[in-house]
Amino acid sequence: MAQVATSTHTGSGPDGPWLSGIIPPVCTPFTADLEVDTVSLERLIGFLIEEGVSGLFILGSSSEAAYLTDTQRDLVLEVAIKTAAGQVPVLAGAIDMTTGRMIEHASRALALGANAIVATAPFYALVTEPPEVDRHFRVLKSACDAPLIAYDIPVAVHTKLTASGLVSLAGDHVIDGLKDSSGDLAGMREVIIGTRSSPQFAIFTGSETVVDCVMQMGASGAVPGLGNVDPKGFVELYNSCRAGQWEQARHQQDRLVEVFGVTRCAKPGKGRSASGLGGFKTALMLRGVISTNAMALPQVALDNEEIAGVREVLVATGLL
Amino acid sequence: MAQVATSTHTGSGPDGPWLSGIIPPVCTPFTADLEVDTVSLERLIGFLIEEGVSGLFILGSSSEAAYLTDTQRDLVLEVAIKTAAGQVPVLAGAIDMTTGRMIEHASRALALGANAIVATAPFYALVTEPPEVDRHFRVLKSACDAPLIAYDIPVAVHTKLTASGLVSLAGDHVIDGLKDSSGDLAGMREVIIGTRSSPQFAIFTGSETVVDCVMQMGASGAVPGLGNVDPKGFVELYNSCRAGQWEQARHQQDRLVEVFGVTRCAKPGKGRSASGLGGFKTALMLRGVISTNAMALPQVALDNEEIAGVREVLVATGLL
Amino acid sequence: MAQVATSTHTGSGPDGPWLSGIIPPVCTPFTADLEVDTVSLERLIGFLIEEGVSGLFILGSSSEAAYLTDTQRDLVLEVAIKTAAGQVPVLAGAIDMTTGRMIEHASRALALGANAIVATAPFYALVTEPPEVDRHFRVLKSACDAPLIAYDIPVAVHTKLTASGLVSLAGDHVIDGLKDSSGDLAGMREVIIGTRSSPQFAIFTGSETVVDCVMQMGASGAVPGLGNVDPKGFVELYNSCRAGQWEQARHQQDRLVEVFGVTRCAKPGKGRSASGLGGFKTALMLRGVISTNAMALPQVALDNEEIAGVREVLVATGLL
Amino acid sequence: MAQVATSTHTGSGPDGPWLSGIIPPVCTPFTADLEVDTVSLERLIGFLIEEGVSGLFILGSSSEAAYLTDTQRDLVLEVAIKTAAGQVPVLAGAIDMTTGRMIEHASRALALGANAIVATAPFYALVTEPPEVDRHFRVLKSACDAPLIAYDIPVAVHTKLTASGLVSLAGDHVIDGLKDSSGDLAGMREVIIGTRSSPQFAIFTGSETVVDCVMQMGASGAVPGLGNVDPKGFVELYNSCRAGQWEQARHQQDRLVEVFGVTRCAKPGKGRSASGLGGFKTALMLRGVISTNAMALPQVALDNEEIAGVREVLVATGLL
Repeated sequence: MAQVATSTHTGSGPDGPWLSGIIPPVCTPFTADLEVDTVSLERLIGFLIEEGVSGLFILGSSSEAAYLTDTQRDLVLEVAIKTAAGQVPVLAGAIDMTTGRMIEHASRALALGANAIVATAPFYALVTEPPEVDRHFRVLKSACDAPLIAYDIPVAVHTKLTASGLVSLAGDHVIDGLKDSSGDLAGMREVIIGTRSSPQFAIFTGSETVVDCVMQMGASGAVPGLGNVDPKGFVELYNSCRAGQWEQARHQQDRLVEVFGVTRCAKPGKGRSASGLGGFKTALMLRGVISTNAMALPQVALDNEEIAGVREVLVATGLL
Repeated sequence: MAQVATSTHTGSGPDGPWLSGIIPPVCTPFTADLEVDTVSLERLIGFLIEEGVSGLFILGSSSEAAYLTDTQRDLVLEVAIKTAAGQVPVLAGAIDMTTGRMIEHASRALALGANAIVATAPFYALVTEPPEVDRHFRVLKSACDAPLIAYDIPVAVHTKLTASGLVSLAGDHVIDGLKDSSGDLAGMREVIIGTRSSPQFAIFTGSETVVDCVMQMGASGAVPGLGNVDPKGFVELYNSCRAGQWEQARHQQDRLVEVFGVTRCAKPGKGRSASGLGGFKTALMLRGVISTNAMALPQVALDNEEIAGVREVLVATGLL
Repeated sequence: MAQVATSTHTGSGPDGPWLSGIIPPVCTPFTADLEVDTVSLERLIGFLIEEGVSGLFILGSSSEAAYLTDTQRDLVLEVAIKTAAGQVPVLAGAIDMTTGRMIEHASRALALGANAIVATAPFYALVTEPPEVDRHFRVLKSACDAPLIAYDIPVAVHTKLTASGLVSLAGDHVIDGLKDSSGDLAGMREVIIGTRSSPQFAIFTGSETVVDCVMQMGASGAVPGLGNVDPKGFVELYNSCRAGQWEQARHQQDRLVEVFGVTRCAKPGKGRSASGLGGFKTALMLRGVISTNAMALPQVALDNEEIAGVREVLVATGLL
Repeated sequence: MAQVATSTHTGSGPDGPWLSGIIPPVCTPFTADLEVDTVSLERLIGFLIEEGVSGLFILGSSSEAAYLTDTQRDLVLEVAIKTAAGQVPVLAGAIDMTTGRMIEHASRALALGANAIVATAPFYALVTEPPEVDRHFRVLKSACDAPLIAYDIPVAVHTKLTASGLVSLAGDHVIDGLKDSSGDLAGMREVIIGTRSSPQFAIFTGSETVVDCVMQMGASGAVPGLGNVDPKGFVELYNSCRAGQWEQARHQQDRLVEVFGVTRCAKPGKGRSASGLGGFKTALMLRGVISTNAMALPQVALDNEEIAGVREVLVATGLL
């Protein structure tokens, strides 16, 4: 495995995971006419690094990667890598339907300088059986000379990565980490316990509201979409957990649950992505980090009434 | 809407659907090293046209489109269009996650000469709300100057297109047809009844085993994966239904259910796609139409024991 | 198997299924204070028999059996059997969570004079594996000396009975029939084909809107909830199919799809059962067959505005 | 709300939840011929109280309540209440399909002396809309003069109780507690935060393997099926959490994850309930607490090979 993160970024000792801490899945800002807004993106990445994040996850679900054309994806990744300038590692999502298409994305991303690849199980394709998912990750790894992070997001992929499958892939050094966006903490605990003999293996939750829980279980950190909006809050939460200050961690986590209210300001009729990511982008716009809250088609951006709801949440939680 | 099919191919009168009959979703043959086998593809297309199909659906689920890179997709479509040589219309799938990416596929396909575009709802993206799916098809249509066929395949996309939504899109001439691979005949009937005021609207089932049923309901035809293996059987079934010979239709349909046994020869551990498409490709290989039964990664082709099972089905049903 | 139906009721020849035709799942009328309205129930059963149904299914989903206490269930069944007075066979649902509890219901129903038992797979209990569902029906049959009809209703039970499992149970004479409310016509066809060597085996659809389709496939008849509202329409549809008059069948079926609009008059916020059964009960009230459209708790009956919608459908389809 | 638990049992101060700690859902032992084994049941209850549990949940999923006839349910509850003899509160499940049937179970249970009622949303019935689930709990509460605990177990009921619905019911004192067996910790946290103004409201997880996590979030305790097998382990885990000894809690929790291996000794073909509860009952038999590992039909008890697997887990974790 290529060595990517230094202990400076991750706070890990020599025997800990190769990557740890708060690694926000970075939103992709758009201009009003739905082009990638590179100026806002640079500002967002600067903001995140300044507030202390340990890495950046580019081209994941929160980046609206599923909506971006390949040209747009490359542009986003290029800007991110250039702006990060090696201060923190940059992980690149290779979101696509199947192994072959993912290899193409991964190759382009590595050529652009990404430090690691994040990949889901195949989707659309009816590849639900464990042997095929297992083979998928093995083929992927053999094609990419870089750390590979399995991305478990059944709400999008409609396959749940099994704990036993992940433990086996980790034991064979096929995958180097897990981003668990399944919400299944019992399964995540199984992976944490099952990979103890691979202490470098890194395990992150994709959830915003149970970070203290997964840290109590022994996770490496979090990749929270809300980390775009309040990176400092998540960094403090992570630090409290690492320091064993669980009471303090709970207070910070409960506060972040309140901030998470920005994802619930959309009126009925908006999809889950438009509500959630729309809330993040609106909050970033209100905080002055990005220029618009525009979203990729066929989503519709939050309107003025919905924006007012987001503003209220930010004010109530001290972010505005 | 561009005029694509002539009544010769479709058997429709001037007041019937613009497209009708049997339109197989064409398998993509591979060489042993998993390159597109263009020679086999030409042979397959020649075989299908010779046996009397009314059109060809290229780059759908049965084509393993989800597994093909863009370069491979273009190659497949090019060969298909060249081989079909205008004898029957060629429909091209634009299988991808979201509107913008689908527009790119559709544009390339139309530039290559495809006669119509087949598109699903967005997937991976959490765009499940009707207003967003509706907007998706409207944006798609406005970007593609060609007939647009909605593809309802919830097993892959995990969104079911609603009858009311489809009727509304048909009424506004946003979509020109439906390929219903949902298995929900009650919903399909609602669409058939709801689109009576648009008699040109074409409605196909993607199912292999209830073609007589949907014809009884008033459908335009079928897009059966098994139509690769026994196109003549499906054409005869379609013709019996059109002629009101329902007893004969039932016998032919029951026979095709038996042929469909080729999809059940895989051992446990193979995914649904590897079993089903693997059965089709193996049958085509055994019938001498294509050269291998190789499948795209991470699928595994049927092995000798499984191939023997497919052979047995073909012999029992007179196809070998 | 006890001989229950005579060819008079079923229209079957000696080699056909033991039961066939239209067998409505009878609604349970309530008084305004939610007691069983036995007078209305007698009137409803008289109405159904007069319009020509071949049997009665008591205590199924459309009877709100899940909402009735055991005392109420016994009362409903007693009244039904007494009113039917042997003119048509009476099937009794044994709706409960598991084998032992279902045996208790079945025993009481048979003691009251029911002619056959209708039973689902276990539910609530996590008995999802085929071997356990298979054992369930075998234990049930051995405890009940009566025809046993498997009831496949995954929307309620959340288990789909597999075609291969049903064929095996039918071949061993464990089950004598199937009520298929799954909507999966492809699976139903597999059962029809797979049970050809047991010509007495009876196969019914629970759907209202694809009766002509299942008759084309070779089914024995239908158990349509809407058969409470327009029994004559369904009997005519069945007869047309039996006579091979498929064009006429389609027209009648399409008309019944329109009548089915009574299930779509509820405002948002009402559950699927309150909308559907509420529509049936309201239609029966408007047609003067039962006295109220009251529904069991926690459901709420259709209100005046919703009732007006049902009335409109009935007027448009000539039922009022 | 009737006052049930004293601070002695629950360890709660005057401002804490009315019930807290470890409350195992008690298994129902059977004799070899599948009658309720009352002698074993007495021994099991004595064992649980002796090891320090704070209450007993009788007639829940782990009690195989779904499989017990009403007569068996009454017997089990009677024995449990008599054996507990007021040392700890006894909660009774009212597992059935709908409101009216649950009220009957609740009334019988309260007449037998149960201290509180545990009830799910309706199931089988298609009562999925929030207004109907809300009305269900309100009707139930008004019919039962006792604490009412909502039981969220979507794997069995196939409805997920929403956080907002639960918070509303708690705020109106309709429900007095929650047993959350959904595995959705993010949702559970919302309930914890949303009910802060009702500090007496009690919130339990039904999970065995994330107890430290929910305690970190502020839950009241756990109702773990595995608590039948190792009650002392769970009581120590609970106490560590209450004392803020999170490192120690994690070690105990990780050990209990290992003990949970008893649920994974069944061979393929056994259902989820037969594997899980079968593992608990086998462990209790091996520990000498109950006499057989028999399970209600159509489940099959673990066989000798599977029993050996359970024994291995117990030996490895020091329980044998």
